[in-house]
Amino acid sequence: MRAAVLRGGRMVYRDDVPDPIPEPGQVLVAVRSCGICGSDLHFAAHGAEVLSLSDEMASSFGGGAMHVDLSNDVFMGHEFSAEVLEAGPDTDTHPPGTLVTSVPVLMSAKGVEPIVYSNNTVGGYAERMLLSAPFLLPIPNGLDPKHAALTEPMAVGLHAVNKSGIQRGETALVLGCGPIGIAVIASLRARGVETIAAADFSPKRRELATAMGAHETIDPAQASPFDSVTPKVVFEAVGVPGIIDDVMRRAAHGTRLIIVGVCMEPDTVHPFFAIAKEINVQFVLAYDPTEFAASLRALAEGEIDVAPVITGDVGLDGVGEAFDDLADPARHCKILVTP
Amino acid sequence: MRAAVLRGGRMVYRDDVPDPIPEPGQVLVAVRSCGICGSDLHFAAHGAEVLSLSDEMASSFGGGAMHVDLSNDVFMGHEFSAEVLEAGPDTDTHPPGTLVTSVPVLMSAKGVEPIVYSNNTVGGYAERMLLSAPFLLPIPNGLDPKHAALTEPMAVGLHAVNKSGIQRGETALVLGCGPIGIAVIASLRARGVETIAAADFSPKRRELATAMGAHETIDPAQASPFDSVTPKVVFEAVGVPGIIDDVMRRAAHGTRLIIVGVCMEPDTVHPFFAIAKEINVQFVLAYDPTEFAASLRALAEGEIDVAPVITGDVGLDGVGEAFDDLADPARHCKILVTP
Repeated sequence: MRAAVLRGGRMVYRDDVPDPIPEPGQVLVAVRSCGICGSDLHFAAHGAEVLSLSDEMASSFGGGAMHVDLSNDVFMGHEFSAEVLEAGPDTDTHPPGTLVTSVPVLMSAKGVEPIVYSNNTVGGYAERMLLSAPFLLPIPNGLDPKHAALTEPMAVGLHAVNKSGIQRGETALVLGCGPIGIAVIASLRARGVETIAAADFSPKRRELATAMGAHETIDPAQASPFDSVTPKVVFEAVGVPGIIDDVMRRAAHGTRLIIVGVCMEPDTVHPFFAIAKEINVQFVLAYDPTEFAASLRALAEGEIDVAPVITGDVGLDGVGEAFDDLADPARHCKILVTP
Repeated sequence: MRAAVLRGGRMVYRDDVPDPIPEPGQVLVAVRSCGICGSDLHFAAHGAEVLSLSDEMASSFGGGAMHVDLSNDVFMGHEFSAEVLEAGPDTDTHPPGTLVTSVPVLMSAKGVEPIVYSNNTVGGYAERMLLSAPFLLPIPNGLDPKHAALTEPMAVGLHAVNKSGIQRGETALVLGCGPIGIAVIASLRARGVETIAAADFSPKRRELATAMGAHETIDPAQASPFDSVTPKVVFEAVGVPGIIDDVMRRAAHGTRLIIVGVCMEPDTVHPFFAIAKEINVQFVLAYDPTEFAASLRALAEGEIDVAPVITGDVGLDGVGEAFDDLADPARHCKILVTP
């Protein structure tokens, strides 16, 4: 079958990937749409560093390291919608043709594996892939499968908002209006938060922030967001060194800072500022299955309309170029891959 | 009157300080005992840096800077008990001779000023000082005024424990068994937390940690505390760069990290580890007046016995030497100054 794979730092088109065969508990699906995630771009460019950090954590913490060999092809793609084709042996699932999405996790006789970066487990940048029968969620209300593919990134925003414990009357500031910041803004708006400010250098991204629910946007090149907003909750969705320290310096006493942007580099902070103002920093990652289901429901019931987020759509042979295009924040938010 | 003042980085004895005169709302008291705080040692050694950080924060945040001139004598001492001498004009207070303590804050016609570092407002390293009538708390139950002087540092521990939201069944790890770590341990024990581990390089401090309520102690020179303990809540009471990052690497998923040690230097962290484990970092400072009163009550009712914490007692002419002695963690925890 056809797929786009990571090879030597570039996304390469292949038409000779063996079709996956479902084991018991697994379901073979045809991918309908798969979003390109910033973490995939990062892994393509800096995979060795990601793996080394992951190993380092595993060695000091005792968790599991990622076993990915960068000298072989790597499958990626974890934001997908799909159509049920065929269940594995002794497996009950939805009828063929059912449109579904799923948390990107594959269960097998060997255990539970995230569908994120793998030399073996095919992800969403392919014609077909395997999913776990118990995790399949049918796409309700005739929701466009292209929109349903964004259940996953929108769940990231929902999880960050849930972890923040924000109340409707508390002012939110979202730093960075890439796909994660946008997902946070959409969830804040869906929750009824009354004052949502968003900051990004890109005018396109500020426009998108407004379309997705921000009440005001700020160009940090003109002035610090903290000059015009006194947020109770700050969402850091940039993920580059220096942002956390800047928030600690500028935020008001008692600010809650939610770190949802993934900074892979060392970062320097001045604890003194955070201490003096009793700042709380909550680092967040991903979502739980309940939040994933709630995200799908919010899209299907029209509480969140992801249409403005989708700025491109390519085939499997266009994934390499799409990865290059996404480097330019002015042009794109989310590019979908439609096999 | 007599006092010990900071002059050119050293504590100097003086016998020519003018007696303070109480304004309306103020009370002149005779200091009975005053604890030497680590922050005073730090200010004596690095006052210019503290003031510069404070100015920096004030300029970016809009808060108030500290106006202290290091080329003139500086009064310090904010952990005190005292005896009421005389109220200011039109001021109701307790009868002369009443033993009291107070949050270290002085109200005057000019506003509210912390009693911490000042060229004008006398602190607890003096024969007499001014306090604010509304803040005076009589020392109950015949509690030794030497013990009552430690209401303030013990309130710091109580506040950190309150902010942590720790439950009795959650395992606590306290990193650093100086006066702040010890105050945290005492409050954890008073709250009934069932597993309290404490780490410090100094055998003396580990002994003190046990005396104050730690169930187990760890020498970090032998092994990382995380090798033997899986804490739900970690209290960082060391205050030097590198500790926060080490906790982020070693702690389990969902750990709450309470930063109660005051690190005045830049610190480098790897957000990746904290993100992957959704760690929460709560920076804390000081206490509120309710916690201060609760701390006094805990000492007076015998819930916390601070006797083991007091490792020295000097007169006003011994403050300089006591500051030097406190640099050696093996010998001292808390030295009291008795004017």
